[in-house]
Amino acid sequence: MNIQGIPTRTIAPLPDLSGVSIIDQTRLPFRYELITLRTLEDAAEAISEMRVRGAPLIGATAAYGVALALSEGVDLDSACATLAATRPTAVNLAWALGRMKSALAHLQAKERQAAAWVEAAAICDEDVELNRALGGHGAGLISAHAAQKAGPVNVLTHCNAGWLAFVDWGTALAPIYYASREGRDAKVWVDETRPRGQGARLTAWELKNEGISHEIIPDNAGAYLMSKGKVDMMIVGADRIAANGDFANKIGTYEKAVLAKENGIPFYTAAPVSTFDFSIKSGMDIPIEERCQDEVRYIGRELVCPKGATARNPAFDMTPARYVTGIITENGIFKPGELTKKKLQ
Amino acid sequence: MNIQGIPTRTIAPLPDLSGVSIIDQTRLPFRYELITLRTLEDAAEAISEMRVRGAPLIGATAAYGVALALSEGVDLDSACATLAATRPTAVNLAWALGRMKSALAHLQAKERQAAAWVEAAAICDEDVELNRALGGHGAGLISAHAAQKAGPVNVLTHCNAGWLAFVDWGTALAPIYYASREGRDAKVWVDETRPRGQGARLTAWELKNEGISHEIIPDNAGAYLMSKGKVDMMIVGADRIAANGDFANKIGTYEKAVLAKENGIPFYTAAPVSTFDFSIKSGMDIPIEERCQDEVRYIGRELVCPKGATARNPAFDMTPARYVTGIITENGIFKPGELTKKKLQ
Repeated sequence: MNIQGIPTRTIAPLPDLSGVSIIDQTRLPFRYELITLRTLEDAAEAISEMRVRGAPLIGATAAYGVALALSEGVDLDSACATLAATRPTAVNLAWALGRMKSALAHLQAKERQAAAWVEAAAICDEDVELNRALGGHGAGLISAHAAQKAGPVNVLTHCNAGWLAFVDWGTALAPIYYASREGRDAKVWVDETRPRGQGARLTAWELKNEGISHEIIPDNAGAYLMSKGKVDMMIVGADRIAANGDFANKIGTYEKAVLAKENGIPFYTAAPVSTFDFSIKSGMDIPIEERCQDEVRYIGRELVCPKGATARNPAFDMTPARYVTGIITENGIFKPGELTKKKLQ
Repeated sequence: MNIQGIPTRTIAPLPDLSGVSIIDQTRLPFRYELITLRTLEDAAEAISEMRVRGAPLIGATAAYGVALALSEGVDLDSACATLAATRPTAVNLAWALGRMKSALAHLQAKERQAAAWVEAAAICDEDVELNRALGGHGAGLISAHAAQKAGPVNVLTHCNAGWLAFVDWGTALAPIYYASREGRDAKVWVDETRPRGQGARLTAWELKNEGISHEIIPDNAGAYLMSKGKVDMMIVGADRIAANGDFANKIGTYEKAVLAKENGIPFYTAAPVSTFDFSIKSGMDIPIEERCQDEVRYIGRELVCPKGATARNPAFDMTPARYVTGIITENGIFKPGELTKKKLQ
């Protein structure tokens, strides 16, 4: 997507393969800074310090980390071990390293280096194509709304499921970017997304750079706007989707799904089919991570409650399939439960 | 209620009537500081600078402001004019000044001074008694829950409708304080209440001082707790209640009311009968104040979104009566629409 008018990916090799350029996302939205990873250590640090974030982008960074390691003369296995240890629970990290190993392990050492750069680029290009396709399917929904009304199509989103978490396009925001490039007029209501504020910080930054009309709202205000007819549809991302269509996403997603249904507003989740976990029958089986209290107690350096107060910080919630109008994927839009393991094979 | 173990009101005359003691609420929750108002000017400044907040407490402060003015030799009419100009839209401010005028205008100038102190104290005492009675009725609901389960009764509240907005007791929190003094075990989930954070700052501070178990949660997390069986009931305040039982309250209240109903959790609003506006047929006729964008864009001194981003900040929303289990008042608990003008007369 665009940054200050320049098409940009979150990660890209330098033309001479002397390094890999990334956006330092810890500085956003206050400073836009590209940094160059030149070594395995640089790549590992970028992942562990969350300079790159979002499972697909972490995977892509690890893949390029392998390429950088081989260029330094580090062997494949120890490179993968170092990178795997950076954020041990990230599914795409293990997946990307596994794919690099399969592609490279059978090659002679001297061929590996060039092949690593090729494979890392392929991982990135596939991610981009997949999200572009997803965006195309979702854009059809926005066009359908646009055909029925005057003025912009008003989309409410929660958290950040934009291109910053991927190599390009993103998921929940991809349909909006795609529709906008097709000339549709969309306006995005951006949930602040407490406690970490990914909506106010990252989604707003993405939309600003892409030139898409948007306004930030407190998480408390979404249903008020719905009740006033100011929301035409909702699109959010998904961290994991169960076989029945229940899905886990950022805390607060469940609230907005219920409120959308109550107000007769279509509610979509957008995610690649790799997000489906058919081993999980329903959302009741998805474990929910509880994070550090200080994310609630502090905003930046600012304490926002009495000293010593305790807080609870569940990071995700589970939205039952009955509130979901459809799931937007790279293969099309499906009703919850419609996409089965069998159908994918 | 208690502060550091000492029973305290938000406003109280000094024993020798040389001044009026208030809590400087602009310092809470980080500093607890009592200040003494000694002049009309002090009282006006305390109201306009929001050292006192909440309609009933503003009214009480204005009443004592009249007493201070008369003690200084300022005449009744100009004292009332000065105080009325501090926050012109506060309904209780005009009401309290009107009451002071009716009580004092017919008296000789020399009798007025003493009568003003008596009348201001009466306004405060009536506020306290009314909220204590409201608390008693609401405490019955908590007791009923306690009888049905082991462990504490878990109450979710939004914003601050506690004693800091009144002279004592408060509304939404009064049932909890009352039940706690009767030996019931209650635990309060405190919504942070973005954008201004009244829950995290003020409700948490009140509960801490009263020794009531509580945890602060992001506004996004309430329904997650409901879905996990961690919320037994909700109690919130009300700014204005229409004849049919629809009511206006802090932004986000409507969201929680819908989510409570969806999860089968009783949802109560607590307010004195003076909050009913029988001239308003339904909530659709209640105007909603939109406040400054910077309340969303900044938290304290901390910018939380891209520079130049726009935000929307509706300060209140309207909860339709169909989501309301009951309205807790000083006269008992009523179903929405049950309390009519006729019934009150």
